Amino acid sequence: MTAFSSLDDFRDQLAQAPTADLSARKEAEARNGQLTKPPGALGRLEDLAIWYAGWRGTGRPELTAPQVIVFAGNHGVTAQGVSAFPAEVTEQMVLNFEHSGAAINQLAKAFGAKMDVHALVLDRPTADFTQSPAMSDGEFLEALTTGWNAVDVGADLLVTGEMGIGNTTCAAAIALALYGGVATDWTGRGTGLDDAGVANKARVVAEGVALHGDKGDGLEVLRRLGGRELVAMAGAIARARNLRIPVLLDGFICCAAAACLEAAQAGALDHCLAGHVSAEAAHPQLLQRLDKEPLLSLGLRLGEGSGAALAIGILKGAVACHSGMATFAEAGVSDG
Amino acid sequence: MTAFSSLDDFRDQLAQAPTADLSARKEAEARNGQLTKPPGALGRLEDLAIWYAGWRGTGRPELTAPQVIVFAGNHGVTAQGVSAFPAEVTEQMVLNFEHSGAAINQLAKAFGAKMDVHALVLDRPTADFTQSPAMSDGEFLEALTTGWNAVDVGADLLVTGEMGIGNTTCAAAIALALYGGVATDWTGRGTGLDDAGVANKARVVAEGVALHGDKGDGLEVLRRLGGRELVAMAGAIARARNLRIPVLLDGFICCAAAACLEAAQAGALDHCLAGHVSAEAAHPQLLQRLDKEPLLSLGLRLGEGSGAALAIGILKGAVACHSGMATFAEAGVSDG
Repeated sequence: MTAFSSLDDFRDQLAQAPTADLSARKEAEARNGQLTKPPGALGRLEDLAIWYAGWRGTGRPELTAPQVIVFAGNHGVTAQGVSAFPAEVTEQMVLNFEHSGAAINQLAKAFGAKMDVHALVLDRPTADFTQSPAMSDGEFLEALTTGWNAVDVGADLLVTGEMGIGNTTCAAAIALALYGGVATDWTGRGTGLDDAGVANKARVVAEGVALHGDKGDGLEVLRRLGGRELVAMAGAIARARNLRIPVLLDGFICCAAAACLEAAQAGALDHCLAGHVSAEAAHPQLLQRLDKEPLLSLGLRLGEGSGAALAIGILKGAVACHSGMATFAEAGVSDG
Repeated sequence: MTAFSSLDDFRDQLAQAPTADLSARKEAEARNGQLTKPPGALGRLEDLAIWYAGWRGTGRPELTAPQVIVFAGNHGVTAQGVSAFPAEVTEQMVLNFEHSGAAINQLAKAFGAKMDVHALVLDRPTADFTQSPAMSDGEFLEALTTGWNAVDVGADLLVTGEMGIGNTTCAAAIALALYGGVATDWTGRGTGLDDAGVANKARVVAEGVALHGDKGDGLEVLRRLGGRELVAMAGAIARARNLRIPVLLDGFICCAAAACLEAAQAGALDHCLAGHVSAEAAHPQLLQRLDKEPLLSLGLRLGEGSGAALAIGILKGAVACHSGMATFAEAGVSDG
């Protein structure tokens, strides 16, 4: 078990993160060129398999042990009326996850993923970021450590999901602090706000960023404007990198948490793909900032890791083709 | 076993095809509104599950027995130099399918689908359609019957795939005959033609359509310009409708075959979704003509049913959420 004693401790981990194995990548590229299909005919599946091979360090990888982790947190900023649902839904949904009743349970099962749930001190919401930083250093490090230690060292793919009434407000504030613009650029309907609700939410986002936005790097932005489940996702994504486990990013909130890592350390998300683009209004532009092309676009806006979990199937298909297909020589097929 | 004695015999089947079960659809809609998620938060997955429920005739369906069928045929039109690969590759790839070495084998396995392969008299290619109709009535009915009987009555989802060197040329000619325009609108690179190859292919397409394009309905277009594997796919898609088995359409060739059914009988593809949009240049406009929004867009252009097989995972995920999730009442979650 790792425990971070300071933000600098974690920054050192980000700086020392391993990179993809270029020789495994080259091996995978060579194999891809010999498979029984016209060159390039599997389109993006070919790139996915080669990318996956590089991170897993083998030219002919398998994908058999995906892990989905859902982190849940509560947010003081809900006092500002930023969500269509009451804050107690966070805890109710945690019970639903534990009883296998939520969407993410069904998707994890459908794609053969192990699923874990971590509720982060729900009875002690973060501070309202329009008044003070959402978390103290100690609270931040605790959530980061939970995320880091939640990753199964035997996993070969990670999906991080979240549940937290009010957390699209945090995500919007983080995006505004990192990338600029105006609050309305990054503020969406979340679980279903009306126009007046969105306007109020944008006001809250603007106030939070006015108070904290120019203070420190990506990790400091995450501490001041984020929430425990966002911090834990960042910790898990960083831990996956440390273990060379590829990650499928989920929607707006997951990507906002991840963006804080990238802001703190360029290249910190090289082991991550965008599982999908969600219907939350600012997700497409957040993905653009991260330079990630989503695998799926099906109008989901649920969170929980649901869009990324759905994309596990795409990556599994890509790896299955790459590692399972016969070569032209093996099959005795003329190669054009 | 059904055997069609005439094209009119088959036309009667199309005219008598069952429609979706509206009461099952309504039941599924009602259930969808009670599941533990904000309304609409699963985006297109919600529509997919409701659509699937209607065709399966139950408000809470399962998807456990998908079937992939690959049909293979050879084409006299290859004499015109329309493919980057030699015609013997069709038979070599059939052996590869039988030995589980092709992409579609890996994808079918990854998504738990049963896979069948039907090689349609490969030693007797269809006639060169620039000279005469590709098939006689008898040959057409034989291929149609093979397709019809290939569908497993116990399947709950069907993917039809194909292999046939030269068959994007047939598909382009069919699309031009059905929808008009000029040959270059519908002619793409297939397995990898260069610009000169595409120009020659467009000439062949134009010649074929000039000879046959105004003769009869969609089935007659399919007989004159198609190939046995396209006819068999059409037969299988029609049989699936007859059995209320939903279908995921694959790429350009599969959709061209399906389009002949729609041209012969409006609504004949109501039980079909577009599994993906391929990188073959004219597939997007063919999907537009069929009014089908693809589930995936990953640049595949392999055929074999590969893109549709990849989409099985999406439909499985949709059905798993719909039928497996808890309702607000069951989970004790406040519904906003």
